[in-house]
Amino acid sequence: MVSLGLVGLGRMGFNMRERLRAAGHTVVGYDRNAEVSDVASLEELVGQLDGPRIVWVMVPAGDPTRQTVLELAELLGEGDLLIDGGNSKFTDDKRNAEILAGHGVGYLDVGVSGGVWGKENGYGLMVGGAASDVEKAMPIFDALRPDGPREEGFSHAGDVGAGHYAKMVHNGIEYGLMQAFAEGFELLEAAKVVNDVPAVIKGWQRGTVVRSWLLDLLVRALDEDPELDDLEGYVEDSGEGRWTLEEAINNAVPAPVISAALFARFASRQQDSAAMRAVAALRNQFGGHAVRKVGG
Amino acid sequence: MVSLGLVGLGRMGFNMRERLRAAGHTVVGYDRNAEVSDVASLEELVGQLDGPRIVWVMVPAGDPTRQTVLELAELLGEGDLLIDGGNSKFTDDKRNAEILAGHGVGYLDVGVSGGVWGKENGYGLMVGGAASDVEKAMPIFDALRPDGPREEGFSHAGDVGAGHYAKMVHNGIEYGLMQAFAEGFELLEAAKVVNDVPAVIKGWQRGTVVRSWLLDLLVRALDEDPELDDLEGYVEDSGEGRWTLEEAINNAVPAPVISAALFARFASRQQDSAAMRAVAALRNQFGGHAVRKVGG
Amino acid sequence: MVSLGLVGLGRMGFNMRERLRAAGHTVVGYDRNAEVSDVASLEELVGQLDGPRIVWVMVPAGDPTRQTVLELAELLGEGDLLIDGGNSKFTDDKRNAEILAGHGVGYLDVGVSGGVWGKENGYGLMVGGAASDVEKAMPIFDALRPDGPREEGFSHAGDVGAGHYAKMVHNGIEYGLMQAFAEGFELLEAAKVVNDVPAVIKGWQRGTVVRSWLLDLLVRALDEDPELDDLEGYVEDSGEGRWTLEEAINNAVPAPVISAALFARFASRQQDSAAMRAVAALRNQFGGHAVRKVGG
Amino acid sequence: MVSLGLVGLGRMGFNMRERLRAAGHTVVGYDRNAEVSDVASLEELVGQLDGPRIVWVMVPAGDPTRQTVLELAELLGEGDLLIDGGNSKFTDDKRNAEILAGHGVGYLDVGVSGGVWGKENGYGLMVGGAASDVEKAMPIFDALRPDGPREEGFSHAGDVGAGHYAKMVHNGIEYGLMQAFAEGFELLEAAKVVNDVPAVIKGWQRGTVVRSWLLDLLVRALDEDPELDDLEGYVEDSGEGRWTLEEAINNAVPAPVISAALFARFASRQQDSAAMRAVAALRNQFGGHAVRKVGG
Repeated sequence: MVSLGLVGLGRMGFNMRERLRAAGHTVVGYDRNAEVSDVASLEELVGQLDGPRIVWVMVPAGDPTRQTVLELAELLGEGDLLIDGGNSKFTDDKRNAEILAGHGVGYLDVGVSGGVWGKENGYGLMVGGAASDVEKAMPIFDALRPDGPREEGFSHAGDVGAGHYAKMVHNGIEYGLMQAFAEGFELLEAAKVVNDVPAVIKGWQRGTVVRSWLLDLLVRALDEDPELDDLEGYVEDSGEGRWTLEEAINNAVPAPVISAALFARFASRQQDSAAMRAVAALRNQFGGHAVRKVGG
Repeated sequence: MVSLGLVGLGRMGFNMRERLRAAGHTVVGYDRNAEVSDVASLEELVGQLDGPRIVWVMVPAGDPTRQTVLELAELLGEGDLLIDGGNSKFTDDKRNAEILAGHGVGYLDVGVSGGVWGKENGYGLMVGGAASDVEKAMPIFDALRPDGPREEGFSHAGDVGAGHYAKMVHNGIEYGLMQAFAEGFELLEAAKVVNDVPAVIKGWQRGTVVRSWLLDLLVRALDEDPELDDLEGYVEDSGEGRWTLEEAINNAVPAPVISAALFARFASRQQDSAAMRAVAALRNQFGGHAVRKVGG
Repeated sequence: MVSLGLVGLGRMGFNMRERLRAAGHTVVGYDRNAEVSDVASLEELVGQLDGPRIVWVMVPAGDPTRQTVLELAELLGEGDLLIDGGNSKFTDDKRNAEILAGHGVGYLDVGVSGGVWGKENGYGLMVGGAASDVEKAMPIFDALRPDGPREEGFSHAGDVGAGHYAKMVHNGIEYGLMQAFAEGFELLEAAKVVNDVPAVIKGWQRGTVVRSWLLDLLVRALDEDPELDDLEGYVEDSGEGRWTLEEAINNAVPAPVISAALFARFASRQQDSAAMRAVAALRNQFGGHAVRKVGG
Repeated sequence: MVSLGLVGLGRMGFNMRERLRAAGHTVVGYDRNAEVSDVASLEELVGQLDGPRIVWVMVPAGDPTRQTVLELAELLGEGDLLIDGGNSKFTDDKRNAEILAGHGVGYLDVGVSGGVWGKENGYGLMVGGAASDVEKAMPIFDALRPDGPREEGFSHAGDVGAGHYAKMVHNGIEYGLMQAFAEGFELLEAAKVVNDVPAVIKGWQRGTVVRSWLLDLLVRALDEDPELDDLEGYVEDSGEGRWTLEEAINNAVPAPVISAALFARFASRQQDSAAMRAVAALRNQFGGHAVRKVGG
């Protein structure tokens, strides 16, 4: 059994601590929220671990993660290992690894998929870094990943950065999958040829080509709210879709589906579209077509 | 000089009558609106024309045009010519031509572009039908088309249907052009790097690659309303974009830009999107991501 | 146990006969290919069934199905039931139902998903038609659908046409799902950040958000051919994607993902693109940009 | 009259020197290609200018421009002005301006549109930088811009970077416009309803909504090669389209048309698509659909 430090006990980290403990591992958790934290500080966390120490960072991507890495670099030492399991951009990983290497600390980047269901089902894991570091952390990965053959819920994707890169692409695909189901749902709702849309979607869960976990979740959502009309059609994005599209651009890879899914989210958040005001204005100019005046 | 019957004196037909009369042609106009009509009925209109008669139909596409063709088929006869200048779907033309041929009446379908500016600038014309019929109507086409070489504002596109087909594709292209300008406008507005967006767009009118009539119209619109915020971003579509996309499908032609422009119009008219409610519901299901509740 | 006539013993029908017989049903199969056929003609097939008879038609959509319906209408009678399980366009169903109703024969349209795996796994079924007809055929549906709760692999979608409509939308979604995975695969291949692309994709099978049957099939394909380079990137389409897009147009539903997936298939079949020749020509005209000459 | 240094005498710079000299300005041009260069080095160029000196840099974007700016920063001094008229990314401008400010040298970034036609027609100009610097360079801008009102071919877009930003968005729009015409052209070619496609497109030049310079160029191209079949449908991109899309992502602006136009170019350059091999493989897996084997 491994003794592990876990920094960040939000929705994901909290559940991961539960799953790791259930597997018999010793986990010392730290969070700024004292109510869920096992220790009062990063110093205390590091002090409680047996060497060689492993610390898993599960805090928001960007500055919070970068800052946590800097602080832990000062606290950890030769032979220790830091794992970033957050949704960091892959471009952060090389810099993190270099900073830590300066202190003799190893680094792995891990893409973690599965959301709030991971505690029970296990998390899909994609790992970047040195094989020797992957080996050290394997007991943790085995506890976090789903039951079944390891290679179906875990991959060592490549060198530092490859784990987050694989997770980024995974999420880009996820955007496309969700939008595909969403367009089909809207068409079924709009066309009114099918009487019972939730029943049809529920009936796709077995035997069909589109059967998938996202479909199962859509069935769950429709069970709770058959026309989804308790919700607004307002969708945030958390970065990975944007990065996937940037990488598609950088690699000259056509990504019409992933970009369409991202743009649909952007549009969902607009009260009114400047672009469509421009189109309305043009139609009015050339054709005298009616426009809707604000407040009209 | 030709004596012409003109059925339909709306925004387009009314202006065309003006332009034809200014060119010295005799035009007998009929409209259900007695205030603008020269005659009280189609019978009277036909009665006032010298044979071989030419009647130009300029009424809304679909049933109104089909009905008018049926009525005129009964009133016209051997050697007469009917011209449909409305935005009819090209699939209507063959049927119209066959009905009229049964009465010895020729048929031309004409795509007419230029909107409310056509009275002054002339109309771009795309014609389908027999060369001999085109010849008969050429004095009318020459009066309606813009000044300059005939072949730059007029084409005999092919057999019956080809005129409306060419106009359909013209309008499909137009959708794409408008959306391209609209996306650029929105990005300039959003990024706030450029201080004076209308000045930049005005400065594109000469020398640049994007100079065009639509750009000139955007400049006009921005002169009147520099942020276009008197308008709502709500955009109708009148059919040709849909037909262009259907034809792209029928001919296995990729049309990502034209379809994107059409879908942006569809989306502009939705208060809320069922598709995006589905995406929001899915994110909530797997990740516990916050959703916006209606009325929340 | 039911005695059923099954017309069309191709890839789908042949397997369905196996599955139905394994469930204990009597099936009389007819195919033009005598090697697989149980009888020599439709007449013989109908003659071997006990009344009230049920005949399942599983032949190619379009003319072959329409023709088979016409022939069976003459052979069947009051109280019999015809089921079209092919990939017919939903617009064919109403006409089929009317023709058969004239002979007192009932009609159900069934969308069948599951491909070559259905024999073993069962087929996802979406059914359109009258509840009383659905009831009559339920033993057959129960034999064909996957094990598990009926409502997870079967739905009575609505009136005549609703089964094929639901299947059409299912396939439209499927286009989008496949293209999303495909774009992600291409990006992983192109970026070369991930060392072992097949391993990463295999590792997505458990725990992740994108886990799905299509992902499992992609893993199978990569097991056989890790870079998929035995294949050409040439993809046919069999109609349902086109119809889904047409219906999106008819219902003013934005479908950017489904259309992008369809257009990607169109483009995959072009040796050279007229559109891109036009773009190349334009760049050459305004910028003197180099172009590739044919044979150059 | 101004005395100006002009660095870079390629397709654009060479023509600009001609236009400036024709307007009466003194231009000292430098190029690594001695055949077109007026001087042997940047030092010599700077030495021949009267102070306060203005040097216009017109070399490829990226490293060549950045390097030239560094070299000129050492050669120029207090009160001099450097203008980058190349297609630099707007993010380079702030850094260039800061480096030059360290030497007391002013900086303007200028987006220049018009391609090889600019020598005769004038260039559309978008300028970023301080108003006082714009004032100094105005005689040059007036010589380069097209005849007609200054504000229709020139804009002072904003602070440093705004000129290249405006040009970037201009080019993003241009991508969309070109693709819209290209899709229309391909559909007309494929559908074969219109007999004489070049005649139809030529007939759009006057009176229509789509009339534009790009249309005029398409007519020129079709005059030379009516089916554009001397060309391959292979289209490069030079960066601005990618940057526009990146900026759309950064600003959460939906850009479906501009992205579709960019992706069409990416796809045009692929011999075979890994994405479409994946779709083909999936269809083969679930449906036993035929695939094309390489060399098959």
